[in-house]
Parts: sequence; structure tokens; C-alpha cells
Amino acid sequence: MKSFVEVPANSDFPIQNLPYGVFSTCDNPTHRIGVAIGEHILDLSAVDESVWAGIDSSLPAAFKQPVLNYFMSMGRSVWSAVRKTLQQDLLAEGSQEKVSSFLIPQSTAKMHMPAKIGDYTDFYSSIHHATNVGIMFRGKENALMPNWTHIPVGYHGRASSVVVSGTPLHRPKGQKKPEDGPPTYGPCRLMDFELETAFFVGKGNDLGDSVNVNDTGDHIFGMVLMNDWSARDIQKWEYVPLGPFLGKNFGTTISPWVVTMEAMEQFIVPNMEMKNPILDYLTMNKDYNFDLNLAVSIKGENQSEYNQVGTSNFKYMYWTIAQQLAHHTANGCNSQPGDLYGSGTISGPEQGEYGSMLELSWKGTRTVKVGDEERKFIKDGDSVLISGFCERDGVRIGFGACEGTILPSK
Amino acid sequence: MKSFVEVPANSDFPIQNLPYGVFSTCDNPTHRIGVAIGEHILDLSAVDESVWAGIDSSLPAAFKQPVLNYFMSMGRSVWSAVRKTLQQDLLAEGSQEKVSSFLIPQSTAKMHMPAKIGDYTDFYSSIHHATNVGIMFRGKENALMPNWTHIPVGYHGRASSVVVSGTPLHRPKGQKKPEDGPPTYGPCRLMDFELETAFFVGKGNDLGDSVNVNDTGDHIFGMVLMNDWSARDIQKWEYVPLGPFLGKNFGTTISPWVVTMEAMEQFIVPNMEMKNPILDYLTMNKDYNFDLNLAVSIKGENQSEYNQVGTSNFKYMYWTIAQQLAHHTANGCNSQPGDLYGSGTISGPEQGEYGSMLELSWKGTRTVKVGDEERKFIKDGDSVLISGFCERDGVRIGFGACEGTILPSK
Ligand SMILES: [Ca+2]
Ligand SMILES: [Ca+2]
Ligand SMILES: [Mg+2]
Ligand SMILES: [Mg+2]
Ligand code: NI
Repeated sequence: MKSFVEVPANSDFPIQNLPYGVFSTCDNPTHRIGVAIGEHILDLSAVDESVWAGIDSSLPAAFKQPVLNYFMSMGRSVWSAVRKTLQQDLLAEGSQEKVSSFLIPQSTAKMHMPAKIGDYTDFYSSIHHATNVGIMFRGKENALMPNWTHIPVGYHGRASSVVVSGTPLHRPKGQKKPEDGPPTYGPCRLMDFELETAFFVGKGNDLGDSVNVNDTGDHIFGMVLMNDWSARDIQKWEYVPLGPFLGKNFGTTISPWVVTMEAMEQFIVPNMEMKNPILDYLTMNKDYNFDLNLAVSIKGENQSEYNQVGTSNFKYMYWTIAQQLAHHTANGCNSQPGDLYGSGTISGPEQGEYGSMLELSWKGTRTVKVGDEERKFIKDGDSVLISGFCERDGVRIGFGACEGTILPSK
Repeated sequence: MKSFVEVPANSDFPIQNLPYGVFSTCDNPTHRIGVAIGEHILDLSAVDESVWAGIDSSLPAAFKQPVLNYFMSMGRSVWSAVRKTLQQDLLAEGSQEKVSSFLIPQSTAKMHMPAKIGDYTDFYSSIHHATNVGIMFRGKENALMPNWTHIPVGYHGRASSVVVSGTPLHRPKGQKKPEDGPPTYGPCRLMDFELETAFFVGKGNDLGDSVNVNDTGDHIFGMVLMNDWSARDIQKWEYVPLGPFLGKNFGTTISPWVVTMEAMEQFIVPNMEMKNPILDYLTMNKDYNFDLNLAVSIKGENQSEYNQVGTSNFKYMYWTIAQQLAHHTANGCNSQPGDLYGSGTISGPEQGEYGSMLELSWKGTRTVKVGDEERKFIKDGDSVLISGFCERDGVRIGFGACEGTILPSK
């Protein structure tokens, strides 16, 4: 399969990917929906409406929305038909005339939040991460909580402060508790990233209904990279007994391009083996894990290039995203199109495969090389970049950048 | 102050109250904004637009919205001017001709969610409740966590499943852990209510900014009653270490009428005394606690009347709502108009003043009288009603009903 659009080698966006995003341009500030191809964006709000006629009569309206929520609500058969139309018609070899006037260089576009997020949940589904954190705070014997291998543990996060890649964030201030004195209020000192992915909900489910773990096709639209910025000192003092709050909700960064599940399904790998029997409502009858290579890099204020500090892989997820969604709705909790569900920090088994500075510096007990500098946590002026790609049988798809810079406290 | 509209004695809605809500009628299914007066609703979307001309030119548009968010965003000076217009002009004695054709009997109206909730947070700010729960689960010595008297502890909840009074909910299913066996999945057995209030955010704050604890006038629009339904068995197994999740997010019920802070400020009482010095960003320079009488009643499926099982009072809140909002934004977390922030279960010092079955039945160790029946937790078919009113100097304002029925598991 090949597009008439030139796609550089190692591009994140060959015709096998086709992620959706929301963009604007200088000459047209309207937020509109596009699909990434090579170094271009095909403006789906501009292509001839007749193209979609055979699929769903509301598609032209869906592509003119300033967010993907409406398209997300349409379900797998529509998404799949649109993908087919893009691959076999609009972007196929020989289709220049139909769409080349609607191709916009990505370098001239500004990307925006892909969806209006109704609710944002963060899971905690990487066994290596949960074990590392458990060892640090509770010791090796009690590293994993008793519920962890039975439940895809998760918690509600803050939807309002999820921002798109490229949005700088101020170092949060907050209440911290020194070992030997009363609490103080001031800039966070233990600023961290969390290397995560997240999925967007497609079709929702009504309050009182549940999504079946083996029937999530309509309900999971696609995935993005996510940096769940974390203020470890604030988090440590506040989180007992009701969980993380101000240590997290000052900002969460996502990549702008939503890679569809249909694209991801080219890279399925076996689910992780469960350590103990799990309940029926979480039992998968198929593999739905993904070989998605992840990396995190840091660029200091005075550095000109990013320095990789860790790699990981989505395949280390103990719980699948289908299990996460089935669990989230097992009590009848209603999901809505555009809800964002984070994976939790994804760490691998090896020391270089840790998804946070907390783990890489092992609670600040060792330094992490950042080019010619060193870090234990994130400094003012540091930019953090998360990237990810899948590769198999000569096909490589990527996620684009999930990037953010920490400015000094306001 | 008296209205031309007849207001029965002990009505929740005299002219000193004037809460806002969203309603529709059989002959006009449009969701629109009204203000409660006696047993009527004044349809603000219908009154002559010229009435608002001197206040803000976008008020007519604000009152035609299907939710209060836009009006909430306008800030205290607008809210205050509208209240004055209502009290001194539209609803005053002698104004029949201006508005009586826009008065709708509440009995013919259906109430809807007053706002589109962007984010919902629940605090944990009643010292008696936190102490009771602490004693039950950690013993008397360690009842209050060390952070509790320094931080208005809170956590993010689920916005999508907040429903308006009168919406029935199915008993959630979920994962529970029997003492002596592996986890099971099935209907919650320890179904509970939590007697709470909640405030709606008015003007928001930008990401990176904070709301000053002594300058919340524009930022807090008003209050409602809230029932934070809780599945204790699900909650107990899931909540470590990231907090409550499926034990809470199957549904949260609020009352439809938003009582404004200007109405509440007629009933200010001293803030609770802090048990230890608190940080500047939480230090109040004025009283902002309220003498708001609260009660919770249960009506079994085969009972014809509600039976009061507990009373409480908002004045038992250790942290004020101004402290809650200042803390929530202390790290730069952005609030948006229509965000909902719950008080946490409000318990008083006495045994009859507990705000949950967990406390009233002391973890199921004693029975609670419900008319001629008994309960430890909530049964299928039970309706739970939360009510509240303030009274001082011959003025009494109330909140209307916050009611919900638990149906059997689906
Ligand atoms: Ca996380
Ligand atoms: Ca609560
Ligand atoms: Mg975050
Ligand atoms: Mg709730
Ligand atoms: Ni939300």
C-alpha cells in the first residue's frame, strides 16, 4: 500500500497509520479535523462531501467539528469505512487531483486538543512500575498491593488541565511536609514525568450499562502518548487516604495525533500472563496487547538536543485497555465519546526501561545522565519528549511528539 | 421583603432565596433557566429582555442557555445585580403584570442538571466524619491522618455520572473481597449514601493561576445538596493506594436548585477553630461557614413515608469552601464555570448526626431504625432523601429535595 503523498523513510505517518487530529492554520484559524500523512495533513473538513456519501450522511458534519468527539461517537464500522476510503481512494496512488489542494504541510499547522475530554481516568497497569514504586515505599515483600493482580487499579484525574503537546506548564506550587518540621507551601522540588499512553473512548455506554471486555471495538477509538506530570513531594504528603490530587492535576500532556485501534491492531502481541485467576468480567478471549516502542528524552534549558533517558514498551502492560474499560464500566459507570483513559506509567523490567525520574533516579538516590548534564528530577527550563512507534514486517507507524517544557513557578 | 407571588409558610423558596435551576415543561421541552419562588418558577428565558439591559447585554443569551454555565461565568457583580432586579422589581409586590405570565407551577415542570459539569471533585472536610471513619478502620489513636488538619483533603470524582434528584440508580455490581476467599464479582452488598453539599464554580481560573482564599466572591456561584452514593464493599477492596473509584462513580445525586452564595451569606457562622497553625494560602480573614441544617431520610419500597435517620449541619465543616477552592487551585489547577466541588460527608459530633449508614450503623455493628423497619445499609427499592434549610431572624430558605432510589442490579 502506497500513497501519492511523499512519505519520508521512518516517517511516523505512512498510509498504514492515518491518525486523526485537530489543527488550524494562519490563514484559517478554524479548528478542524485532519488526518496525518507523511509531512502533510489532509483537511477532512474540506474534501468533497460526496466522498463520504456511501458511509454515513453525518460524516461531513462530523469532520467540520472543532473536536473529534462526534466522529468518535460513530463507532467502528464508520471509522473502518473512512480508513478504507482514505487508503484505497483519497490517499492512494493516482488520487492527486481529488485532494492535493486540501493537503497542508504540518509545519504550517498548529495542533489543538483532539477532543473535549469529559472525564479523564488514569490507570496503574504496568506491573514493573507498580512493583518499583511498591519496593521504594513499602519494601520488597509488600511491593504489590493485594488487589493489584485482581483489579486494573485506577483513579479519576483532572480533565480540565489535560493539554496538547507543546503547551508549557509552570512548576506547580503546593504543600509539602519536610521530614522534621511543619508543612510548607512553595514550588514543587521533586518534579517528575510519567511515560504513559492513553486511549480515547469511542462510543459511550449509558449509566447502568457495562462494556464487555471482549466487545470493545466500538468503544475504544484510538491512542495517544501521555505525560502525566507528577509533583512527587506534593503527592507524597497529600495522597493518603484518597489518592493523588494536586500532585497531578496541574497539567497532563498528550500528543495531538490519535492513532486508531485499527492501525494499532497491526502490531498485536500476546497479553501478559496473569499471575492468578481473574474474574470472568475481565477475562479476555483474544490478544489485545501492542508492541509499541516508547522512549522519553530530556532537553535542558541550555541544551540544543534531546537526550534519551529511558525506553519502554507498551507490551509490558499487565492489564489490556479492554480490561481497563470493562473494569471502569463494570459498576455501570457511563463512558462518553472523548473520555481519556491513561495507561499508568509504563516501565519495563530493566533499569533503563523505567518510565519516571522517580524510578530512574531510584527516589533521588542516583543521578541520571542527560547528555552532558545530570538530573534526579526535572529542572526549570527542561523539556520532556515522549515518543513512540510500532514496527513489523516493514511497516512502521509512529505517534508524533508528546512534548512539554516546565517553566519556573509563577 | 415580600413577593407578589404567594409563598407558603416554611417554603424553601421565599424571595430571600431565589435559587437558579434548569427546567422544562410538557408544552415546552426546551431546557431553560428559571428561578424558584414559592411553588412557582419564574422563566428567566421568557421575561422581557429590556429588564436586563442595565446589567449586562449578554444576560438574555445567558438565560436562554440549557445550562447555567454561562451565567455562572459572569461573576458576582452580575449575579448580584440580577438578584436585586428580581427582589426589588420583577418579584416584588406590584409586579404581577410584568412577569405573571412567565410563572410556571413547579408541579408541572421537570428539573434537569443545572450545569454541564466539567470536573467534579469531592472533599473530605468534616472532622467528625473523618474521625469516625478513621476510628473504624485505623483505631482511635490514628483516626485522623497527619495531613488532615493541614490540607482540605480531596480527590477527583466522576463528572459523567452526576445526576439530578429523582434519577433512579441501579445497585452497582463490582469486585469485592471476602475475608476468606478470592475476590468475587456481583451486586454491591454494602450500599450507602453520603450526606453532602457541593458548590458550583462561578468564574474559572486559568491554568497556572490560583484563587485567593479571601477573594472567592466571583469564583463560587452557589450550593446544592449532594448524595455521594457509596458501595462500601467495592470501595474497601479497590481504594488502596489510589483512592475511591468504582465504589463511587456509578452515580452521585444533586438537588436541582442552586442556592446562591448571596442567599447563603445571610446565615454565616464562625469558621471552625483550626487545631494547628495553617499555611497562609489557606488562612481566612473572615467567617465563611454556614448554619445550614441538614437531614437524611429513607423510604423503603413498601413504606409510604420518609423516615428521618440522621441530621447534621454544614457548620461542622472544618474547612470552608473558600479554603477548598484555594487549595484546589494552589498548584495552578484550572477551574471552570460549572465545576462541582463536594463537601465530603458532613457528620456532627453526636451519634444521630452521622452522614452515612457506615457511621449510623457503625460499620454494620448496629441497626438503624427506618420507621417500622431496620437497616444497616441501603436495600433495593429504598429511596434516600437529603434536605437542608437555613433559618435566622424569621427568614428561612431551603434547598428543595435531593432524592434518589436504588433499583436492583441490572
Ligand atoms: Ca500516572
Ligand atoms: Ca464523599
Ligand atoms: Mg496528570
Ligand atoms: Mg459519588
Ligand atoms: Ni470531567
